[in-house]
Amino acid sequence: MGILVVGSVALDSVATPFGQVERALGGSAVYFSLAARHYRTVRLVGVVGDDFPEEYVRLLRESAVDLRGLQSVPGQTFHWAGRYDHDLNVAHTLDTRLNVFAGFHPVLPDSYRASEFVFLANIDPTLQLDVLRQVERPLLTVVDTMNFWIAGKRDALTEVIRQTDVVLMNEAELRQYAGTDRLLAGARHVLSLGPRALVVKKGENGAALFADGVYFVAPAYPLEEVRDPTGAGDSFAGGFVGYLARTGDVTDAALRRAVIHGSVAASFTVEDFSVRRLVRVTRDEVGRRFQDMRQFTWFEPD
Amino acid sequence: MGILVVGSVALDSVATPFGQVERALGGSAVYFSLAARHYRTVRLVGVVGDDFPEEYVRLLRESAVDLRGLQSVPGQTFHWAGRYDHDLNVAHTLDTRLNVFAGFHPVLPDSYRASEFVFLANIDPTLQLDVLRQVERPLLTVVDTMNFWIAGKRDALTEVIRQTDVVLMNEAELRQYAGTDRLLAGARHVLSLGPRALVVKKGENGAALFADGVYFVAPAYPLEEVRDPTGAGDSFAGGFVGYLARTGDVTDAALRRAVIHGSVAASFTVEDFSVRRLVRVTRDEVGRRFQDMRQFTWFEPD
Repeated sequence: MGILVVGSVALDSVATPFGQVERALGGSAVYFSLAARHYRTVRLVGVVGDDFPEEYVRLLRESAVDLRGLQSVPGQTFHWAGRYDHDLNVAHTLDTRLNVFAGFHPVLPDSYRASEFVFLANIDPTLQLDVLRQVERPLLTVVDTMNFWIAGKRDALTEVIRQTDVVLMNEAELRQYAGTDRLLAGARHVLSLGPRALVVKKGENGAALFADGVYFVAPAYPLEEVRDPTGAGDSFAGGFVGYLARTGDVTDAALRRAVIHGSVAASFTVEDFSVRRLVRVTRDEVGRRFQDMRQFTWFEPD
Repeated sequence: MGILVVGSVALDSVATPFGQVERALGGSAVYFSLAARHYRTVRLVGVVGDDFPEEYVRLLRESAVDLRGLQSVPGQTFHWAGRYDHDLNVAHTLDTRLNVFAGFHPVLPDSYRASEFVFLANIDPTLQLDVLRQVERPLLTVVDTMNFWIAGKRDALTEVIRQTDVVLMNEAELRQYAGTDRLLAGARHVLSLGPRALVVKKGENGAALFADGVYFVAPAYPLEEVRDPTGAGDSFAGGFVGYLARTGDVTDAALRRAVIHGSVAASFTVEDFSVRRLVRVTRDEVGRRFQDMRQFTWFEPD
């Protein structure tokens, strides 16, 4: 089934204790697409400037990402510069230049409108609403957000949440949005707005799925070394949505497995800078890590 | 099979955003015993002063804790005063008075020496070594520690680790002891010293078991409200060791289930101040939370 993603395409300059990259391929729609492509072709809607390297376009195309929805306009591509220190859970933003992304207005090619699975990556919630108006009765809509929109566009974000099936947030975002430190109470609040499920991303502590009568926890895949956490959340979303789109099964049991696939996708991303590891991943590797995750969580009844 | 615990018996004065208690029953050996007693009788070795309330002695006796190893000496009982703010993961110590605990020298009654399961709670590692010399070939020895001993008595602690089967640490302690932020590398270092298994406690993020060829992760039991986290780690140890002692099965599969029982035990403790909730827990409640934990982690193969 078709997957649509609307989000950022960026050039990232990132430094961590393990190295650095300059103007490397990044952005929420990119990480999502490269994680989801193992399952289905992804239709990408985003914008780049005329400085966007042709090699990155080629890389995405060769990775079976449908770029008919990628707008190319005069100007500079969205550029993010950040640094991670010792604590890789905290990103220090050094510079954010929205550039052409500031004027981004998502327009879906006609061929995209009937996508069964829609992922609204972390962009202005008024644009997310705009996308929801353009799609034709998708089977599942999934939305991500961030602290900036929770603080600045709360009402629009709440409207997005009301209209989507699955909400992704990290722990801090949930606390901020729900106004409580208590995870269960916060999750209950989000679900009360209408979505069928909430997935709380907890970085190295895994992810939790909340739905009616469902609480499911997946660990993060254990790694010898995390080199660059950039894109982990969007890759999680890619594995999550991609897996569901492969079969079209969106039962609770499938959502549980999708959380595992999300964790597996994120685990590849953080093993190297930018999308380096993600583009090399094979379906066999994905399958092996999924199996490993069963071993990591399995225990017999008493 | 018999369980022996050597650790502190204390009076705790604790304040959290949810209330406070003065001179309430506490201490590592107490939390451990009250969590483990659901599985087997626990033999406690510790010391109290002559101010230790008779009602606490009665409570422990009625909870089937064997107190023949509890020394009562002139002076004041160990008293800890602490405060938890907003972030319940961080204890702020206001006052520590070791009192009679400063001169504590564990002496095992003869009837305790043949205990099959031995838990060395967080005390001076030289005393832990002393206990190991007094026991007769236990089936499983489990040790806990803390930052204070890691910094101040590192060599003795390393010797304890060499001589025990299972090491319990929280994440920060593992990082401090192993000198690395990388969890897997830290775990490998601890296991290289000789223990069969390491359990890393991660508070609200659950616990992880490391052993030869085994990596197992259990979530924390989700709670509407955590009122007082004091004693969570020792209760975890009580559920962990207690469960193993019930059947004497110490295979890897049993260790996995024991981690779940540890998490369940800790979940009761933190629901109320001091040992209030822990003393009211029934075996049925333990069983139900164990079953819940299977639901929280279960997913089908692909």
